[in-house]
Amino acid sequence: MTLDRRTLIGSLATMGALSPFLALESAMAQVTADPAAKAADAHMKLMSVPGLVMHGNEQVVMLLYPGFTALDLVGPHYFFASMMGARVHLVSTGADLAPVPSDLGLAIQPTMTLAQAPRDPTVVFVPGGTTGTLDAAEDPALRRYLRDASARAQTVVSVCTGALVLGAAGLLRGRRATSHWVARDTLAHFGATPVDARVVTDGKIVTGAGVSAGLDLGVAMVAQLRGRPYAEAIMLQAEYHPEPPFPGGTPTTTPAPIAGPMRDMFAPFVDRALRLPVDP
Amino acid sequence: MTLDRRTLIGSLATMGALSPFLALESAMAQVTADPAAKAADAHMKLMSVPGLVMHGNEQVVMLLYPGFTALDLVGPHYFFASMMGARVHLVSTGADLAPVPSDLGLAIQPTMTLAQAPRDPTVVFVPGGTTGTLDAAEDPALRRYLRDASARAQTVVSVCTGALVLGAAGLLRGRRATSHWVARDTLAHFGATPVDARVVTDGKIVTGAGVSAGLDLGVAMVAQLRGRPYAEAIMLQAEYHPEPPFPGGTPTTTPAPIAGPMRDMFAPFVDRALRLPVDP
Repeated sequence: MTLDRRTLIGSLATMGALSPFLALESAMAQVTADPAAKAADAHMKLMSVPGLVMHGNEQVVMLLYPGFTALDLVGPHYFFASMMGARVHLVSTGADLAPVPSDLGLAIQPTMTLAQAPRDPTVVFVPGGTTGTLDAAEDPALRRYLRDASARAQTVVSVCTGALVLGAAGLLRGRRATSHWVARDTLAHFGATPVDARVVTDGKIVTGAGVSAGLDLGVAMVAQLRGRPYAEAIMLQAEYHPEPPFPGGTPTTTPAPIAGPMRDMFAPFVDRALRLPVDP
Repeated sequence: MTLDRRTLIGSLATMGALSPFLALESAMAQVTADPAAKAADAHMKLMSVPGLVMHGNEQVVMLLYPGFTALDLVGPHYFFASMMGARVHLVSTGADLAPVPSDLGLAIQPTMTLAQAPRDPTVVFVPGGTTGTLDAAEDPALRRYLRDASARAQTVVSVCTGALVLGAAGLLRGRRATSHWVARDTLAHFGATPVDARVVTDGKIVTGAGVSAGLDLGVAMVAQLRGRPYAEAIMLQAEYHPEPPFPGGTPTTTPAPIAGPMRDMFAPFVDRALRLPVDP
């Protein structure tokens, strides 16, 4: 009798009949007698991976203003906040700690106001949006904070149209930068050279393309701050191997009857962006 | 003299000297004398795209519990909330409307409590997390709401380990489903057949893989609710053509010295997941 349990399970599995049971066996194999000890041992093993900087003390300032796009911010936040030891501050441009509403009605609770924000952050991050972003770019207190903090920050970061706020603060002059495809060419208004890329690094300025580019930028930022192995660990934790169900996401890969009107819908945004102030 | 302005600009552009000025010209070309009229016209054009359902009245319930992973929820939220006419409710499992903290310290303001949530939503959505998700799966009131609402909902959706909450509510029995790679095999504990895919649809149950899979799931959900052209429009708005800076994001594409310990770090989570209750 050679048909032991494993052989039986194997032959039934090829029939697709036992997959839930095999999966359960696989899940249970992950757990030893002492799961906590296994986890602690794993932590030590990760710490010994060459090039992986497990602990740090970065101060990351992520700005919240009314009408920001939540996904612009929450993508990078996942990566920043997953770095052990990093402190991520959600900084409201408002006068108090009231939740700040996004353009799509999702409000996030700030952890401090602009007046309380660190003057020497490791990273300053500005999300994008539409009307709210243009209002933010016209806010002298925000632009003053950005100019001041960026003088000492290691990296100044934007996703999407957040680049326009950096531009209005005079931080993109002479830089290569990117933004949401709708607004990319307006970066020239701020003295920047627009680049069609997912993430653009020029000195201490790191800019991302529209909305979802914040995830690619998040990975790139962790690699910059903690080394590529740490970024690979967080990518795995985020299960970041994207597979959009069908092509699209750029003006050239979207059917023209959709891409054309989508661009035109933002004409009022572009019109106003081109009239934003630009600090010296 | 054949060197007109366009020729001059063209030849200088090949030298890379004038790209900011060309970009500005391009940006200004987007704006007509009346940007608002252009946008209104674009809206009409989009409405005439075959298969694009511009207006709807979906009721989308997105659950918030302490310790949820913000990116699990904010990815799909972007897509749901971008559907014109859809009402997205951020529903706290708590007793009041206090902001609900995520596992990484980002708190989102709910718009209603579970007691106030619609009993007949179009979509019910559950995000994942780690310890907080296991606590949520052990919350009888949440499981009761899910069982009740799912009887009438068009679609019941999870991202990441949110699938374990659906499983505990007895909603995955006999279904094909996915979850975060760490937890995928535990779905068998709930009577499901685990599937290694980015998004799995089985009847009215739609489950997504870990964290970042919420964006792929968001696109798929818009396509289901409003047709593929609308999903293509929102993909373009989100500039969703992801380009991770290097490979990774799965146990097999991550270097083994990182992937192994990362799996082991979640042994306590898997251990507890396999002891969750499963409603009949």
